[in-house]
Amino acid sequence: MKTSNKKTKILITGAGLCGSLLGLRLAQKGFHVDILEKRPDMRKAVVDGGRSINLALSDRGLSGLKLVGLEEKVRDLCIPMNGRLIHDVEGNTFASNYSGREGEYINSISREELNKLLLDEAEKYENVHIDFDDAVTAVDLKNASVTYHDAITDTKKEWKADILLGTDGAGSVVRKEMMKQRDFLFSHSMNWLPHGYKELSIPPTEDGKWRIEKNFLHIWPRGGFMLIALPNLDGSFTLTLFMQYDGDGPAFNNIKSDQEIKDFFNAYFKDVVKHIPDLVEQYHTNPAPPLGTVRCSPWTSYGKSSLIGDSAHAIVPFYGQGMNASFEDVVVFDEMLNQNETWADAFTAFSTKRKPDADAIANLALDNFVEMRDSVANPNFQLKRQIEMRLESAFTKAKYQSKYSLVTFPEEGVSYEHAMLKGRAQDKAILWLLENKMITVDDELDSLLNKIKEKTEDVLWLRE
Amino acid sequence: MKTSNKKTKILITGAGLCGSLLGLRLAQKGFHVDILEKRPDMRKAVVDGGRSINLALSDRGLSGLKLVGLEEKVRDLCIPMNGRLIHDVEGNTFASNYSGREGEYINSISREELNKLLLDEAEKYENVHIDFDDAVTAVDLKNASVTYHDAITDTKKEWKADILLGTDGAGSVVRKEMMKQRDFLFSHSMNWLPHGYKELSIPPTEDGKWRIEKNFLHIWPRGGFMLIALPNLDGSFTLTLFMQYDGDGPAFNNIKSDQEIKDFFNAYFKDVVKHIPDLVEQYHTNPAPPLGTVRCSPWTSYGKSSLIGDSAHAIVPFYGQGMNASFEDVVVFDEMLNQNETWADAFTAFSTKRKPDADAIANLALDNFVEMRDSVANPNFQLKRQIEMRLESAFTKAKYQSKYSLVTFPEEGVSYEHAMLKGRAQDKAILWLLENKMITVDDELDSLLNKIKEKTEDVLWLRE
Repeated sequence: MKTSNKKTKILITGAGLCGSLLGLRLAQKGFHVDILEKRPDMRKAVVDGGRSINLALSDRGLSGLKLVGLEEKVRDLCIPMNGRLIHDVEGNTFASNYSGREGEYINSISREELNKLLLDEAEKYENVHIDFDDAVTAVDLKNASVTYHDAITDTKKEWKADILLGTDGAGSVVRKEMMKQRDFLFSHSMNWLPHGYKELSIPPTEDGKWRIEKNFLHIWPRGGFMLIALPNLDGSFTLTLFMQYDGDGPAFNNIKSDQEIKDFFNAYFKDVVKHIPDLVEQYHTNPAPPLGTVRCSPWTSYGKSSLIGDSAHAIVPFYGQGMNASFEDVVVFDEMLNQNETWADAFTAFSTKRKPDADAIANLALDNFVEMRDSVANPNFQLKRQIEMRLESAFTKAKYQSKYSLVTFPEEGVSYEHAMLKGRAQDKAILWLLENKMITVDDELDSLLNKIKEKTEDVLWLRE
Repeated sequence: MKTSNKKTKILITGAGLCGSLLGLRLAQKGFHVDILEKRPDMRKAVVDGGRSINLALSDRGLSGLKLVGLEEKVRDLCIPMNGRLIHDVEGNTFASNYSGREGEYINSISREELNKLLLDEAEKYENVHIDFDDAVTAVDLKNASVTYHDAITDTKKEWKADILLGTDGAGSVVRKEMMKQRDFLFSHSMNWLPHGYKELSIPPTEDGKWRIEKNFLHIWPRGGFMLIALPNLDGSFTLTLFMQYDGDGPAFNNIKSDQEIKDFFNAYFKDVVKHIPDLVEQYHTNPAPPLGTVRCSPWTSYGKSSLIGDSAHAIVPFYGQGMNASFEDVVVFDEMLNQNETWADAFTAFSTKRKPDADAIANLALDNFVEMRDSVANPNFQLKRQIEMRLESAFTKAKYQSKYSLVTFPEEGVSYEHAMLKGRAQDKAILWLLENKMITVDDELDSLLNKIKEKTEDVLWLRE
């Protein structure tokens, strides 16, 4: 199948964030695109029980929105978060900016509002057709055709395309079909954390304002567990409690009665309790689903299909990069389509180029859970952060970026894999230099930078 | 279920190397053990097409055989291999010993002969019953019961036990049942190499002798692919060709015709060709199965079952540790049974203790493929090896062991995980010291040892 043939029939399974952005981009390139989505149209029905779920949108995600010309429109949905606001057990707060540079922040955005915008924009193109209430039940990878259940008519239907793009998320039916086949060696893994997550909500004030500081990602780090909060445009905050299911210390399976819930929140999050009158009810009502990491390879089969986004690489949320990674996938996939004559080659190039980056952000996200929930960290971690803020304030991005900044505010072409390798080595280098008293926070900046760069090279060599 | 209750009905699925050793050990402890094995009894029928497959038995495996009192009997089946004998393209050979110490060698042993011995020894116990030709098809983990197909009577049967031990190998039915359940979060992965393996055979001489040097593991390293050979007691050698299926350079899918096979072997392995008159026929006849790594966690479910051996952690063969790891599992499992009052606690303790070691040897085995097949390695690797041989010759094990030695000839209590962390750090430390000209091969031994120990500590800190 030639990538230049605009008559190619493309089927996308899943009209979530990744599928709708991908559909929009392919429509802009002149392809005919059909999208099957198992859920009802979220613009007409309340889909997720009405809870307001938000995500952190940053530069990699914005590059995908820029590609389709939506960066400015999306900015209207965003609330900038300049850093973390850490809440200790006594209710004291400490701000920690994401970057030492001006204008580098992440954005809180409603998953639903962003998805609706992408659906609206995609449907402006005549060559895009989205069918809701259609759940794919089986996939024929060799023929790029699917069987699906139409919930409206309660009938089983089939769809034959030329090209099949699976943007059907962490539980991908397309990926499961790849696991079953025997023609090629499909590697895959599913790894669960012992922690689940429960979403809660702080309501807005009566005049629609925010009850806690608006422009931060709030964290209540408590060692084995933590609470975070991201602001919504309506003045509310979405809280997420990350906690183990079982074991010593607080755990979902030990905190079940009204009294246990009250005691737990009063003990660990007392500055939040007062903002949530229906806390106990919310706790009972909202589920506590698990957190998993999906890895697989290759992402493509028979030259006719590819996984894109969470279906290929679902990750835990602790780096705020799940959606960003999926949108960056669309940017990379678009490049691969431009650079390759056939879809088969574009798929292989995409899978080969992008897989190391998907693995890197999966690992970084797992690491970051420990960093986020640790309240009593090594004092050298604090000094490291101060040094990095000084360096970022004084030097250009090309001269210095922290790991967080390499991941979140990358210069063009800086991959997740590079960010991971360089960022981890830098972290180790600075901690080693502090530990061995070879630098201090107040050292002259050029000297600091040189020592860190030199040690980082050494660490990269020793860690590879 | 109390571990002290000897009336506990134990069902083991799989009478391979791990299942038969485990059954024997549990019988020695006084338990009633039933074993279901899907294949025919290898003592009565030819099971694997008559090919002689051998394995490398070393200290960790021997510890399992010692536990059941079979170490001496097994020695009679062994051919010691003192090191690698490297064959270059011109047919020149270079010996590289496994250790700088006397008496540290690995053993070539026939999988089939060892398995037969273990079956015979197990069946000497009245409280062991082994049923062959019985393939487990479904497992009820909650009730420790299985459904199986009896090939002799072609009927479906059920077996209810108190405790279920899955020693059913890389394709474990018990593990697949754990993947299906929804009561607990079962993490799992299946990772394939792009390489497969094909076994070939060098026949003995007419008077039953070995055609190439007997007491070595032979390697023909060729970069992207390699051939190895292990000796058998009858004078033959089992060769294994490891090669990618597809891609640039030699690949199974590019070497198919008689002429292609001859050309390939004449180009890369000409010193072997003369020993195998029916090479082309063997190449056509023998399959080229893939090489995979299985990881999962936890290994136990509902306090009634556990995976043990390959079913929990199948690894690639490049460290010669697959069987050794499974036998060491039996030693650790035996300890856990002694230390815990209930089977549930013993299972949890076993899974928790042993999982990091299983992951470590899986990773080491993957690394070693690269080391084994690289013919033109960094010259510093050769210098490193010389330094390590000097250190091992001069000092006790407690003072210095190479990574290979930590894995293969460990002191008591040295786990695979420790061997991996320490061994990798040592390798990096020596290479770094050589690269930075801070040591030479001929340095005074105490000075060498101290520099390496100091740098190793530093690398451990930087790599963690």
